[in-house]
Amino acid sequence: MSHLEKAITCMVEVFEEYATKDDKKHQLSAAEFAELMNKELAGPEFQGKLDQEVRDEAIAKLDKNHDGEINFREFSMFLATLARGYYRSTKKGKGNKGKSAKSE
Amino acid sequence: MSHLEKAITCMVEVFEEYATKDDKKHQLSAAEFAELMNKELAGPEFQGKLDQEVRDEAIAKLDKNHDGEINFREFSMFLATLARGYYRSTKKGKGNKGKSAKSE
Repeated sequence: MSHLEKAITCMVEVFEEYATKDDKKHQLSAAEFAELMNKELAGPEFQGKLDQEVRDEAIAKLDKNHDGEINFREFSMFLATLARGYYRSTKKGKGNKGKSAKSE
Repeated sequence: MSHLEKAITCMVEVFEEYATKDDKKHQLSAAEFAELMNKELAGPEFQGKLDQEVRDEAIAKLDKNHDGEINFREFSMFLATLARGYYRSTKKGKGNKGKSAKSE
């Protein structure tokens, strides 16, 4: 498998790992989601790349369908939102328009 | 970094690797996207899990904004759609629950 294929399967595996902790095996409860966030998305290196704003935006999207449970569709959109935040931050970091960040 | 954090950063890295091949560094041209698909998302193991229907659905979504270029937002939604197809297929594949699902 390519890295990208592994990335996609990882999204599924992590969801399943946490979603299956309680009786509703296909949804993350608030507690399961909180545990997933704390264990899988709290690394300082990753966090450093994500503005609080992006996290808030991503969480707000989850809240839209708020029935207290997060299905895989919602989770996949959540990860896509985080990825967009990460993408924006890498571009900022690089100073890609040739401004000043050349020597980082 | 956790596996999930690596998965998210991988989505970004692969996009950048292909998007930067031509002058429009923040978008995938049709040619860049085709190359990405052929090199990064064509493994038999992964393909075996994805119905043609899912691929078609994902590509159709890309086409919605069709200006011949795919930005990261569109790409992230595309990957989320693939992930949902993969998730559905793993559930099909597993059939019943409770077979040997005793987790750590």
